[in-house]
Amino acid sequence: MIIRDAKLGDEVSILGLIHELAVYEKAPNEVINTAENLSKDLFQDKVCEAIVAESDGVIVGFALYYTAYSTWKGRCLYLEDFYVQPAFRKQAIGTLLFEKVIAIAKERKVARMDWQVLDWNELALSFYRKHNAILESEWINGRFFFPNSSLEESI
Amino acid sequence: MIIRDAKLGDEVSILGLIHELAVYEKAPNEVINTAENLSKDLFQDKVCEAIVAESDGVIVGFALYYTAYSTWKGRCLYLEDFYVQPAFRKQAIGTLLFEKVIAIAKERKVARMDWQVLDWNELALSFYRKHNAILESEWINGRFFFPNSSLEESI
Repeated sequence: MIIRDAKLGDEVSILGLIHELAVYEKAPNEVINTAENLSKDLFQDKVCEAIVAESDGVIVGFALYYTAYSTWKGRCLYLEDFYVQPAFRKQAIGTLLFEKVIAIAKERKVARMDWQVLDWNELALSFYRKHNAILESEWINGRFFFPNSSLEESI
Repeated sequence: MIIRDAKLGDEVSILGLIHELAVYEKAPNEVINTAENLSKDLFQDKVCEAIVAESDGVIVGFALYYTAYSTWKGRCLYLEDFYVQPAFRKQAIGTLLFEKVIAIAKERKVARMDWQVLDWNELALSFYRKHNAILESEWINGRFFFPNSSLEESI
């Protein structure tokens, strides 16, 4: 089992895991991202970055993150998605991925690392509690969806 | 009253408004950002962008945003902070700023625009409801703070 930076070609496996996580989060039809677009964003335009967990040459987990910004704290690292396949849990792979992202945040000397977790996801919440993370429930997410995005037009 | 892109030199006024908003959000001591760092992030490294509302040459409101990423939706626009001074409210300045950010998001053809609002901030919540925004309360913010950030070291 190795943890390594994602490399060109990994986008297909990562997108597969993104779909698995969307099913778990009860929103399987919400994924409009494509392997081609993810590849461009990760490796060409570098809008985001990813690390993967590889077991016998197969990617079984990943963490995807990017540089966010806080008016209060300056640059932050935002952990957008973080997933290990059920069959590969209980082997500390999640801990290895999570701790690697924390190490990257510290290395870059950002003031804060952020992520979000669904309030019914007890498995994830207990994982974050074990890592002594701060969990704030007083925020509400505001959103607009735009149906004519370049990603949807390209499909 | 004009709405325009922030330009070099505006960082001092914007930081003043960031401090005002922090007082309103009951966290006046949480701001470690400096005008110098904000200037670098906005105008040199372009980690984030801002628009301002100017009345008689004085900046009375701002919106600060950046390109975020969703594994499901690809590139998104994240509205990090958005504020109008109390004395200048009830003049639709907030609406002008907010609608300008929405227009930028649409222009860039992102699939989603996101922000966060505190659950006790009824003024902001009713503003977003009036704009038919989706408001999701089932998410919890996970965070780590790192005391040795480059920003803190530079102070």
